[in-house]
Amino acid sequence: MSELVIINGVETAEARIGADDRGFLLGDGLFETIPLYGGIPFALTDHLSRMRRGAALLELAVPFACGDIADGITSLARRNGVTRGAARLTLTRGVGPRGYGIEGCGPPTWLLTVRPCTPLPAGRWERGYTLAPSRIAVNPRSPLASAKTTSALERVLRFAEARRAGADEALALTLDGNVACGAAVNLFWARGGTLYTPSEACGILPGVTRAIVSRLAADEGITVREGAFPPAELYGADEVFATNSLLELMPVTAAQGHFTGKAPGPLARALHKRYRELPPEA
Amino acid sequence: MSELVIINGVETAEARIGADDRGFLLGDGLFETIPLYGGIPFALTDHLSRMRRGAALLELAVPFACGDIADGITSLARRNGVTRGAARLTLTRGVGPRGYGIEGCGPPTWLLTVRPCTPLPAGRWERGYTLAPSRIAVNPRSPLASAKTTSALERVLRFAEARRAGADEALALTLDGNVACGAAVNLFWARGGTLYTPSEACGILPGVTRAIVSRLAADEGITVREGAFPPAELYGADEVFATNSLLELMPVTAAQGHFTGKAPGPLARALHKRYRELPPEA
Repeated sequence: MSELVIINGVETAEARIGADDRGFLLGDGLFETIPLYGGIPFALTDHLSRMRRGAALLELAVPFACGDIADGITSLARRNGVTRGAARLTLTRGVGPRGYGIEGCGPPTWLLTVRPCTPLPAGRWERGYTLAPSRIAVNPRSPLASAKTTSALERVLRFAEARRAGADEALALTLDGNVACGAAVNLFWARGGTLYTPSEACGILPGVTRAIVSRLAADEGITVREGAFPPAELYGADEVFATNSLLELMPVTAAQGHFTGKAPGPLARALHKRYRELPPEA
Repeated sequence: MSELVIINGVETAEARIGADDRGFLLGDGLFETIPLYGGIPFALTDHLSRMRRGAALLELAVPFACGDIADGITSLARRNGVTRGAARLTLTRGVGPRGYGIEGCGPPTWLLTVRPCTPLPAGRWERGYTLAPSRIAVNPRSPLASAKTTSALERVLRFAEARRAGADEALALTLDGNVACGAAVNLFWARGGTLYTPSEACGILPGVTRAIVSRLAADEGITVREGAFPPAELYGADEVFATNSLLELMPVTAAQGHFTGKAPGPLARALHKRYRELPPEA
């Protein structure tokens, strides 16, 4: 129990927060999960930019500078002995009066943790991920769709559904039946050399890895089309993959009985290779 | 700071929880707010039943019996010197491995607090509540719509919108444009002696007070129609009122420029009077 965390700028081994924090009471907060390679955070600026956009939406003051988080991660990684791992930054509205009102709340609470991650076992990437359909549709009209909030229960339930179905991740559709995302991943598929991914208008979380992979693909001369696509387009694709910050780029080798046991495709291989060659601030 | 709370069955003045609790990290929990009159909880059984239904949806084990909560509230009310107040019961999935997965989580965390409430100042009830339209539509297809979860950020934002518009509460519509609810209230309106309220199919939280008021109305021989109704029906009503456990039954005297400054109607007066006469377990 000697793990150190940072709470409101202070390094401590006492990882506890007030039970009247609105993060605990009302899911009134945001978070980011940032991968660490060799003790160095990857794409930290992109993660903090997304958190700032979310904070503006929530009318939440951001009580730290980018440098505070960079320094904090480096310090926690060193003191906790983490090289390959994940930092999690949580920002909440802090303590406030009873009820939903945001007046009189704060100052915000922020928590930074750095923990080791086990790399994927050999062969796991090649086996790929399976997707199971989710009964919980994504609501593209929610203003919160684009923010990585701690009101994450719909994502939790989508993930639980997928696991219960024996799959690795979910395939969630929008309320009008187009492909949206998984529980914790963005989705891509390729057909005839073109890459497709649901647009932000589909209510997806704008993934940091999604943006990087799109940019890498464009750099390789691959057309990336964002839009609203029915699931038949994914099922009929040449290859499918999922992205998130910790998973990086993971081939999808089965989805709801389609392309079962398919091997990782050439685009997944090429883009993942390019991704792993990126410097920390790509 | 001598306020006592109960955490996982233990009375303590140390109201802190682990920063790795999924209630804090992912809004992965449920809550109930129970009013106290003369130190005695009102409609506790109804609140606990709703939490149990929510827990089944979340696949969350309920780690307490009804009697534990009743005893806990009585004890906290006495030791904190609360007669007119509110108990809040929060139940979360507890601590778990990184990510959204629910496997390996728990045991659940539960927190019980009892705090005083200030009664409404004289004349406040007669002045009534104003409603401002919400841009955040209610998604009736969310399986979480019927559960009082701690992933409450949409409700928080609806309330903030209403306050920014100078109103007391929100008027949120469903995605297809029918009346749903406020941020923290259910809505009723009367026309030609019949009472109307959005049905659960509209994605509303099934309010404990809503159910009691419906029953009281039926007892008085008033027809209560539940359904999907466009906002014009509310705007054109003879009277409108809002319900929740702490507010009880509050007249609505203005909504988006309609019936501005209207006095509380006869049904609001009669039903509120009947409500206040109810014994603790009505």
